[in-house]
Amino acid sequence: MREGRRIAVLSGGLGGSRCVDALARAAGPDAITAIGNVGDDLELLGVHVSPDLDTVLYTLAGLLDEERGWGVRDETYNALAMAGELGGESWFTLGDRDLGLHLVRTSWLREGLPLSAVTLRLAEALGVRVRLLPATDEPLRTKIQTKDGELDFQEWFVARAHRDEVTGLRYEGAEAASPAPGVLEAIEAAELVVIAPSNPFVSIRPILAVPGIREALAAKRVAAVSPLVGGKAFRGPLAEMMASLGHEQSAAGVAALYGDLVDVFVVALGDEGPPGAVEADIDMVDPGRRAEVGRKLLEALL
Amino acid sequence: MREGRRIAVLSGGLGGSRCVDALARAAGPDAITAIGNVGDDLELLGVHVSPDLDTVLYTLAGLLDEERGWGVRDETYNALAMAGELGGESWFTLGDRDLGLHLVRTSWLREGLPLSAVTLRLAEALGVRVRLLPATDEPLRTKIQTKDGELDFQEWFVARAHRDEVTGLRYEGAEAASPAPGVLEAIEAAELVVIAPSNPFVSIRPILAVPGIREALAAKRVAAVSPLVGGKAFRGPLAEMMASLGHEQSAAGVAALYGDLVDVFVVALGDEGPPGAVEADIDMVDPGRRAEVGRKLLEALL
Repeated sequence: MREGRRIAVLSGGLGGSRCVDALARAAGPDAITAIGNVGDDLELLGVHVSPDLDTVLYTLAGLLDEERGWGVRDETYNALAMAGELGGESWFTLGDRDLGLHLVRTSWLREGLPLSAVTLRLAEALGVRVRLLPATDEPLRTKIQTKDGELDFQEWFVARAHRDEVTGLRYEGAEAASPAPGVLEAIEAAELVVIAPSNPFVSIRPILAVPGIREALAAKRVAAVSPLVGGKAFRGPLAEMMASLGHEQSAAGVAALYGDLVDVFVVALGDEGPPGAVEADIDMVDPGRRAEVGRKLLEALL
Repeated sequence: MREGRRIAVLSGGLGGSRCVDALARAAGPDAITAIGNVGDDLELLGVHVSPDLDTVLYTLAGLLDEERGWGVRDETYNALAMAGELGGESWFTLGDRDLGLHLVRTSWLREGLPLSAVTLRLAEALGVRVRLLPATDEPLRTKIQTKDGELDFQEWFVARAHRDEVTGLRYEGAEAASPAPGVLEAIEAAELVVIAPSNPFVSIRPILAVPGIREALAAKRVAAVSPLVGGKAFRGPLAEMMASLGHEQSAAGVAALYGDLVDVFVVALGDEGPPGAVEADIDMVDPGRRAEVGRKLLEALL
């Protein structure tokens, strides 16, 4: 195998973090650059929260609450409880340890460090050797269109519990954004780019919406892992979004969304995919199975 | 007794909060306006901390860790622990519930509310009926001069554990500051102004340094309660500061510092004071005794 970072992974939150972890366990963390979604970032109580980047960080650092799929395990919630009692914003759950990370991120951002540099410092402090980069350092926010109007992503997802049917999406700030330092280089240097089994609308497209990233992928071998198995998502509202946005609620439907950007589409063993799909074990929920799943995936793709 | 707010108290941290509590238990919380020191405020991890105002709030809300004399009882420290692990500032202890309050304060300040309005909102949310006002809404910071140079108050007090001998003090920003809304009115409306048994150098003088406050006091009956008993402070570095700054380390020494600003100086039973000093029980450490101590103090002063 070649030395250095040779696999780039486009990643959202939970599904993405598990895929990054699986590939890192299989190929070694130094082989991986993860390019993370920032479309669901938010400011809350004055702190900058990057839920998808954090889920990747916490997963790789072994801190994730795996049961729940977000946040830090063995967490307390005393700061948020007090903030709520005082009339502060408390609709978005922030644990105390989680908040410690947001405070540090926010203070570094205020010192003028870009999000990518902040994220690298956080990863280093947590002993994470995978290189994690936000798709962009600039503000890019996913907006969800519903029949009641446009909502911020977290307003739709958390505050309203993704009950509103999605009629469209918009990636605010994407056109003016540029890839974070290292993103295009990581793609160019990669022998394989993996699109993780993340929600294409709210995790992957906000990455692809940053000018330059889609173009860089066009020249590469790109594999996408299906986020739907038997037409259902491991977790989250993807199946419902596929339906409400007029797409087939299946792996093949997701493959059609990516179109010719993707060279190899990977579906779960026994699942139906588009013509030419590769079948593989893509169940990465159990951390104990991820090394093996990652190994087989790389065997199939490299 | 007259209706309305009729006692104004100039207050620092622990000693001040206990005195405010004692007077509030004796005269009723609606009779009291506490004017709090902001000279030891600081920004830390991007949040605005007002240690003295918070000690008053926590004391009056019954949340104070009475044993330790600061912060919230039954507190956890998980956010700060995480921040420290990540390389963020962690030299100043912030508990999780405490941090929740700072986050709310800071977010309201960022919305443009002045500190006085924020403090009133926090007090209301905590069910505190004493009216607590910062001496000023503008930045005023106590600087400590030592033979190794000038230090921020908390740098001297917390980070260096007040080991450096104090050779002078400066109240940065005081000259340009103005009293917070309600401060002068509270003094003018008061039939009695009490200077709490707080450190004169780092708690009371930063209040008096705000132009207009000393002048308003000149027209009023002002009583000061000695922060030294038998030449010793209940807690904190006052005795050492008296010595290093060339003052007599006694109640009379404190009285001399206040000079003719004060009409009545109150010392502990049996303690020596300046000529004309009133002796009273001023031990307000035990919350269970505060109502009685406050009652006797008011009997002696009104």
